[in-house]
Amino acid sequence: MNRIEKKISKVFNNIPVADRPEAVFIFNDGRIDKNFFYITGLYNGIFENCGLLGDSNGKIYLLTTALEEEAARSVEKYAEIVIYKNKKQRNDGLKRVFSNYSKIGIIYNFISYSFYLYLKETFSDNDWVDIGKAFKVSRMIKSQGEIDIISRASDFVSTVADSIPGILREGITELDLAAEIDYRLKKEGAHGIAFKTIAAFGKNTSMPHYSSAGISLKKGDAVLVDFGAEYMGYSSDITRTYLAGEHEKNLLKIYDTVYNAQKRAIELIRAGVNTEYVEKEVRCVIDRYEQYRGRFIHSLGHSIGLDVHDDGYPSEDFNKEFAESMVLTIEPGIYIPGLYGVRLEDDIVVKKDECRVLTTAKKESFTYEIQ
Amino acid sequence: MNRIEKKISKVFNNIPVADRPEAVFIFNDGRIDKNFFYITGLYNGIFENCGLLGDSNGKIYLLTTALEEEAARSVEKYAEIVIYKNKKQRNDGLKRVFSNYSKIGIIYNFISYSFYLYLKETFSDNDWVDIGKAFKVSRMIKSQGEIDIISRASDFVSTVADSIPGILREGITELDLAAEIDYRLKKEGAHGIAFKTIAAFGKNTSMPHYSSAGISLKKGDAVLVDFGAEYMGYSSDITRTYLAGEHEKNLLKIYDTVYNAQKRAIELIRAGVNTEYVEKEVRCVIDRYEQYRGRFIHSLGHSIGLDVHDDGYPSEDFNKEFAESMVLTIEPGIYIPGLYGVRLEDDIVVKKDECRVLTTAKKESFTYEIQ
Repeated sequence: MNRIEKKISKVFNNIPVADRPEAVFIFNDGRIDKNFFYITGLYNGIFENCGLLGDSNGKIYLLTTALEEEAARSVEKYAEIVIYKNKKQRNDGLKRVFSNYSKIGIIYNFISYSFYLYLKETFSDNDWVDIGKAFKVSRMIKSQGEIDIISRASDFVSTVADSIPGILREGITELDLAAEIDYRLKKEGAHGIAFKTIAAFGKNTSMPHYSSAGISLKKGDAVLVDFGAEYMGYSSDITRTYLAGEHEKNLLKIYDTVYNAQKRAIELIRAGVNTEYVEKEVRCVIDRYEQYRGRFIHSLGHSIGLDVHDDGYPSEDFNKEFAESMVLTIEPGIYIPGLYGVRLEDDIVVKKDECRVLTTAKKESFTYEIQ
Repeated sequence: MNRIEKKISKVFNNIPVADRPEAVFIFNDGRIDKNFFYITGLYNGIFENCGLLGDSNGKIYLLTTALEEEAARSVEKYAEIVIYKNKKQRNDGLKRVFSNYSKIGIIYNFISYSFYLYLKETFSDNDWVDIGKAFKVSRMIKSQGEIDIISRASDFVSTVADSIPGILREGITELDLAAEIDYRLKKEGAHGIAFKTIAAFGKNTSMPHYSSAGISLKKGDAVLVDFGAEYMGYSSDITRTYLAGEHEKNLLKIYDTVYNAQKRAIELIRAGVNTEYVEKEVRCVIDRYEQYRGRFIHSLGHSIGLDVHDDGYPSEDFNKEFAESMVLTIEPGIYIPGLYGVRLEDDIVVKKDECRVLTTAKKESFTYEIQ
């Protein structure tokens, strides 16, 4: 089996036999479905208005606009390439491909309602069934190749994170720091940034999804950075919080609490462990201090892969259990509105008997001196 | 009217009276709907699993997770903030808000089919109608405030583009050049990059959506850069192609042809002009040379705003006519597969009697010398 057939076959195996369609269909209508890149392994090109169909016998059609033809040709040996220049040609191409099948699987929580209506009305001979869960489950469990790529993306963020205390100086702005981080990621070898880098100073650290601005660093400010590298289409994601040599005295206690909460999670996670149990244990570390109770206002982490926020944590689809070869972030935080926040985030791979931390940047030496 | 009411009212005015729902509802389920940022004017925060409802009387509800509460509070004076910590609280919050209305407008080509099913089944007392076109039409015609923001974002890309010939030297890689461009954009004041920067050398210039790699610049290579700045949530988008002092002799003719094609478009575009007429005129400039015929393989441009690819060109919704205060890119290109490509892209505002070019970076001095 070639690599595309392997991926398609993994998806089919995650659909209960009784529900299996004859083919699966992915289409980037307006927005881009990462499942397209999951199956093709492509990471060049944008592929708007492109798609693919893979059947249970391993036959693949890559449906592409002329704009992406050259990039698409790189998978020519695995797939029949169907090229169209306008909507009419696209419809004809889809009709020809769909006519080989009766029941076709699509991803209900990805395709837009209007695209669903288009499929239903234009290709009324086909039955359209939801196979979103099979894609989700397939993508949650990474292959060794995927783990190697994310591991590389994690190396980039770790190296850059370790260099940050050396960049901090009085007067540097959040946007300057973010620009510097992004530049260093790419110089390390990242293909891009995985999401918009967050650099927050002082009270801005209390907003988990803060957008950096022209704020300058002042003596005593906490510094929070949250950033990721993109490599071959895959993402890493790291958060570090740095305390100034002379910081507000409560901050160190918050830092230690978050640090211990994350440590607890990493000690507990391995294949077969219940996710709610880990979440509860982590919240225990935080909530034992009355002043932090309820100040960990988001979930413990999320799956990463082709998307930075792949699909939350292992939920019902995995009996709420961590499973081998999941790649996840662990990111507890404590946020005191209007004052400050501390978050630490690492990327881990779930193994049979432990979890392996991919992002190795320092956490113990958390202070910086204004230069 | 406050700024949020103004936006909501603009959307309502773009729905035929007979079809008007009592309220419009936007929700970021899994992916982020830029219409949420269009209405709120927010550009901090991510707002996953957040939404808003605005009714025809100007009442606004901002529906948010605890994670985004602090960012949401910045519009507290315009909107009632509804906060939820879990799915049950979210459902209860939505139920309470929806119960004030019977017919609610949603965006069929944005919401996922599964979210549509959830709305339909969970809130079965409500009627759900499509108001996607009203959002599209509203967003195509920019306010002066929006034009000022995009104009600022265009200044950033223009300044950086003008600095590129000075960076080019033998051996620089595509990824290095992209990193340098991104860094300079942020140092100019951009809040981020609008999309992944394309830097392509030599034969890679022939792929319109090429992803940069570790390829080094060689003497005589054409250099194509396509990048954008994000500022206050809005995007700019520019492409320049540079020819080496000693270039392949056909390249200059291709460059001149693309340059003249773009010039023709800019001369023709103003309010009321038919888009197909302009496209035809532009293709004429290119197709008069037999060797370039059919090598302009994408559309002439796209609307820009909160999204880089807002929604293609003015189409049926505007009788295929350019209208005052549209902001668009004009980007003809000629691509010779396996050899090279040339594309020039500028951002323009459609005015009553002309079009104004926002991206002022040089195009005439298109050669660089290897340093």
